[in-house]
Amino acid sequence: MPPSDDAAPSAAAALIRLREEMERPPYHWFLKPRPEAVDADTGAVTITLPFRPEFRRSPSEPGYHGGVIASLIDLAGHAAVALRIGRMAPTIDLRIDYMRAAGNGDLRATAKVRRAGRTTALADVEIMDCDGKVIAVGRGTFSTFAG
Amino acid sequence: MPPSDDAAPSAAAALIRLREEMERPPYHWFLKPRPEAVDADTGAVTITLPFRPEFRRSPSEPGYHGGVIASLIDLAGHAAVALRIGRMAPTIDLRIDYMRAAGNGDLRATAKVRRAGRTTALADVEIMDCDGKVIAVGRGTFSTFAG
Amino acid sequence: MPPSDDAAPSAAAALIRLREEMERPPYHWFLKPRPEAVDADTGAVTITLPFRPEFRRSPSEPGYHGGVIASLIDLAGHAAVALRIGRMAPTIDLRIDYMRAAGNGDLRATAKVRRAGRTTALADVEIMDCDGKVIAVGRGTFSTFAG
Amino acid sequence: MPPSDDAAPSAAAALIRLREEMERPPYHWFLKPRPEAVDADTGAVTITLPFRPEFRRSPSEPGYHGGVIASLIDLAGHAAVALRIGRMAPTIDLRIDYMRAAGNGDLRATAKVRRAGRTTALADVEIMDCDGKVIAVGRGTFSTFAG
Repeated sequence: MPPSDDAAPSAAAALIRLREEMERPPYHWFLKPRPEAVDADTGAVTITLPFRPEFRRSPSEPGYHGGVIASLIDLAGHAAVALRIGRMAPTIDLRIDYMRAAGNGDLRATAKVRRAGRTTALADVEIMDCDGKVIAVGRGTFSTFAG
Repeated sequence: MPPSDDAAPSAAAALIRLREEMERPPYHWFLKPRPEAVDADTGAVTITLPFRPEFRRSPSEPGYHGGVIASLIDLAGHAAVALRIGRMAPTIDLRIDYMRAAGNGDLRATAKVRRAGRTTALADVEIMDCDGKVIAVGRGTFSTFAG
Repeated sequence: MPPSDDAAPSAAAALIRLREEMERPPYHWFLKPRPEAVDADTGAVTITLPFRPEFRRSPSEPGYHGGVIASLIDLAGHAAVALRIGRMAPTIDLRIDYMRAAGNGDLRATAKVRRAGRTTALADVEIMDCDGKVIAVGRGTFSTFAG
Repeated sequence: MPPSDDAAPSAAAALIRLREEMERPPYHWFLKPRPEAVDADTGAVTITLPFRPEFRRSPSEPGYHGGVIASLIDLAGHAAVALRIGRMAPTIDLRIDYMRAAGNGDLRATAKVRRAGRTTALADVEIMDCDGKVIAVGRGTFSTFAG
């Protein structure tokens, strides 16, 4: 007997839902993050951030502002946790390690839930540039408390 | 005898320089952070982020997106370190703790250098809402290596 | 009318309680941390760690092992939160910044609760050496959920 | 032609060196961490911490003190970075996420260098209990500056 849709929504349905959620925050109207995939087995979420010149830290050199990368890590980690628990999961804390400069290409974030408990969840995020190099990693604690 | 400008630039000169630097990154043309003060004794930097609707996480409720707060922490911490060492100081890592939701009012960031060494510096940042409540704290390691 | 002991235990009573709690964990029988004071107004907790040669990272040079400093930050942050909420508060995450090497002298930890909510609390810890210099800072998220 | 020992020390030689280094810090005479393996391809380091009652946080319940786990993360991350660069690499900052309680069994730490630059390196550490469950993860920035 196949699993019911209620118990385990398909990855395709999760991706549709993620795309809807991703368009709600007004700040995302500026960033324009694009959900690409939800892994059916792990629930890992892949989100692309298409490059735009307003993401740069310098007018004369390539490279993203650290705040844009932090924003992508926050929203990707949140997306993975929210998808897992089926509701919003406010960020409690966030940590970002910048590893190398990204050029002026699209970024790709992959976020995985490491643990989801009754009050908090832990998510890991990797940010890759368009050459597939990891340019930053993030880790965050999110609130899962239903109240 | 007054201190020479080379050895200890006045707080007023530092504020002018900070305002120039703050306008360079294209991402700041979106955020529009506004340097308010540089403390003459401690070098602490105060930067206001005037509220705009595009900073929200929800179209229907008040409150900033976590990525905007992370961005403000990154740029304020960087500003304090850069002012201290007299050049850019790329962010190595950044940690943000979200303490309470901010409403739709301006934010105020205060950033202090805790330690500045030959290769790295540590900065602490507090974000207050317009009622003077701390809504988030941040801490970051920045590169001070001259090469 | 004086405040009742139930609503606001005196700093002296809190210190007695803290000393009892500090002796319970078997790992503390090795570390031997010594609670010194509880601030009546802020609830900040001060704990001394008397130096012992087995805390060193090197047999030939002065200085504490980073793990000992991390342990002191963990237990001091926990003590401040546990005192505030009146029960144990398991550590969810912990961040330590090592600022300068401490010599072979006692360490002093001061821990303050920055926020205590229904499910998590945030605490800040500073570690000073015997000259009063800050040698490390820590920040942690602790669980306050009563179940 | 085989790679020279200078350029790429074999995993076996690295393990011998790691075992020697692991016995130097006086604090390790208490912890007794045991290097198990060095991965020839990735340089990942595996270190076991055999359980001892003095590592517990409670005299009556199973489970490690958070400070012991933080210590294991610090020393494993340091070991991976030191092995990569061929000298000590003082910890700049360390972050630990506690995921679930470990019982009274041995712990196993696996540490990997994520990036090693001219002034800093980033390492990731996972701590597993004797059932192979991840009970904590750590991430740290270490100094690689030769001076």
